[in-house]
Amino acid sequence: MDEERTEIGTLGEFGLIAELTQNLETHQDSTKVGVGDDAAVLAPVEGHRTLVSTDLLCEGIHFDLTYSPLKHLGYKAVVVNLSDICAMNGTPRQVVVGLGLSNRFSVEAVKELYSGIKLACSRYKVDLVGGDTTSSKSGLTLSVTAIGDASKEKVVLRGGAKAGDLLVVSGELGGAYMGLQILEREKLVFKEAPGAQPDLSGHEELLERQLKPEARTDVVEELAKLELTPSAMIDISDGLASETLHIAAQSQCGVKLYEDKVPMSEKMYDTAREFNLDPTLCALSGGEDYELLFTVPQSRFEDIRNHPMFSIIGHLTEDREERTLVTRNGLETELKAQGWDGLSANS
Amino acid sequence: MDEERTEIGTLGEFGLIAELTQNLETHQDSTKVGVGDDAAVLAPVEGHRTLVSTDLLCEGIHFDLTYSPLKHLGYKAVVVNLSDICAMNGTPRQVVVGLGLSNRFSVEAVKELYSGIKLACSRYKVDLVGGDTTSSKSGLTLSVTAIGDASKEKVVLRGGAKAGDLLVVSGELGGAYMGLQILEREKLVFKEAPGAQPDLSGHEELLERQLKPEARTDVVEELAKLELTPSAMIDISDGLASETLHIAAQSQCGVKLYEDKVPMSEKMYDTAREFNLDPTLCALSGGEDYELLFTVPQSRFEDIRNHPMFSIIGHLTEDREERTLVTRNGLETELKAQGWDGLSANS
Repeated sequence: MDEERTEIGTLGEFGLIAELTQNLETHQDSTKVGVGDDAAVLAPVEGHRTLVSTDLLCEGIHFDLTYSPLKHLGYKAVVVNLSDICAMNGTPRQVVVGLGLSNRFSVEAVKELYSGIKLACSRYKVDLVGGDTTSSKSGLTLSVTAIGDASKEKVVLRGGAKAGDLLVVSGELGGAYMGLQILEREKLVFKEAPGAQPDLSGHEELLERQLKPEARTDVVEELAKLELTPSAMIDISDGLASETLHIAAQSQCGVKLYEDKVPMSEKMYDTAREFNLDPTLCALSGGEDYELLFTVPQSRFEDIRNHPMFSIIGHLTEDREERTLVTRNGLETELKAQGWDGLSANS
Repeated sequence: MDEERTEIGTLGEFGLIAELTQNLETHQDSTKVGVGDDAAVLAPVEGHRTLVSTDLLCEGIHFDLTYSPLKHLGYKAVVVNLSDICAMNGTPRQVVVGLGLSNRFSVEAVKELYSGIKLACSRYKVDLVGGDTTSSKSGLTLSVTAIGDASKEKVVLRGGAKAGDLLVVSGELGGAYMGLQILEREKLVFKEAPGAQPDLSGHEELLERQLKPEARTDVVEELAKLELTPSAMIDISDGLASETLHIAAQSQCGVKLYEDKVPMSEKMYDTAREFNLDPTLCALSGGEDYELLFTVPQSRFEDIRNHPMFSIIGHLTEDREERTLVTRNGLETELKAQGWDGLSANS
């Protein structure tokens, strides 16, 4: 391909920032000053809490540019932070972005990355209000900090669940992990036969779960409509099992989770089988689904049980030591968090 | 030396975070939930603006671990962000920290880095309320986002200066740059004769300016005592000349700066001469001084002129094209921003 390549050095730092941040729209009333000063200036809503979450994404650890398009990467970097704000039952409002770039990256590549960042901002009506663009000795580093808010009464922590509360999850699980398996397989094929075209057709759903996840702002809105404030909530970045154990531990409860209740898409299930993987294990430990996992008192059972967004997958118990997974055939085993990526992205 | 070395893998991500964040004190009433949930929860002060600034620091670009002790690096990473909050005339309240670590770093090394981060937090009564700790393929990456506030009326932008306003700077300039020159010299000596001990004695002042800068929260407090809200303000990270031109451009004014008014320490001046460098150039373009540069109406001349914290170094002018440096011998030349580090840290 005959692509244009402009070296970052030809624009310089200030030129690059000007190029990237031109025509930035803002959507939030609370954004008083965005990019271009020493700090962003925000006007908090009276009586609301401010929520702040940060993530650092490093090339070769959190993403692989051989199969992550830069635009998708920018999108995902923003979304995973918005997801953390959702996990507090909050509404994301602003992001600031730090970018470390080696000289491997051209102005065009950075613009591509930024187009994904901007797309996520526009999709979620979140304002990009600041950042830092700098060179790096090696590869690409992306840091995103998201700022959001929620009224004081509506903020949900991880530690508020009570014994007896129902454990509920949005959406379907395991898809992002299976998407990654498909990408890794095609990368291997390509390594062995560099001319080969990747065979990704039919896998769009799973690839999208991996490459372009969404933050469940719609779930937060739905909870508000239901006038339902969860007793505890977390987003699923490390895997359902791990996040379930976080809620239980921080709420000083035990937990019982039913394998047959864990929501999985048919596509995910079939693909896991094709890869000789246990679908349940993918759903429990895959991670990166960015669904919301929360608890509600049993009195709210009727609001949840037939709701298309939600699945009741278990409940919390009195015994703080209990970590039970009830398998499909009724056996009880220990629910374990099997990280698939040792020291991985968090919070 | 017989130092202990614990691999990060032996603790795991959650273990490492638990280790780093144990016994974290908080100082601010506005910190409602700190480390340990999906996001920090802050309670903004009514009528105040929230200020947010972020920086990304990459090994080999912003710091060189051959002469930056990890503790100093952690301290500086926090301070440079607090300085951005000061530059808005605000008070820093919280920070979140992202850490990317290659397996070169042991648990002990990360704890050393964190001890500097915590020292800065304690020194400035700022709360560490969140973060992300992750592995990196190469070297150390540090991202810091600082959150602060100021009452709505007191927020100072870069673009509010008027023609005739006095240009004022806190402290003395060029020291951080000279500190860096000394460190680079000793690094070269060491490279050529690896047994050689670095000769840093007598240079403590300049080394401290480079390795352990401070944020001028005291200047913000002093301005409040004087009931003086600057018309424009910026902190000096890229150098006096560059920052002066930012204020002028964003305020749509010209500027006249007097070389003989630029505050320099005797030590900096003498060391520059020893290195065959022009002291004024070091002060104008050296950068990383983290002093505050601001403008005030001429009516406030008496408050500033004999104040030990401040130096009046010039004034803004009507002609937007004017960028004048008046030299010691009365000649007028063009004030130019000579970055010493192409694509460097910013905002």
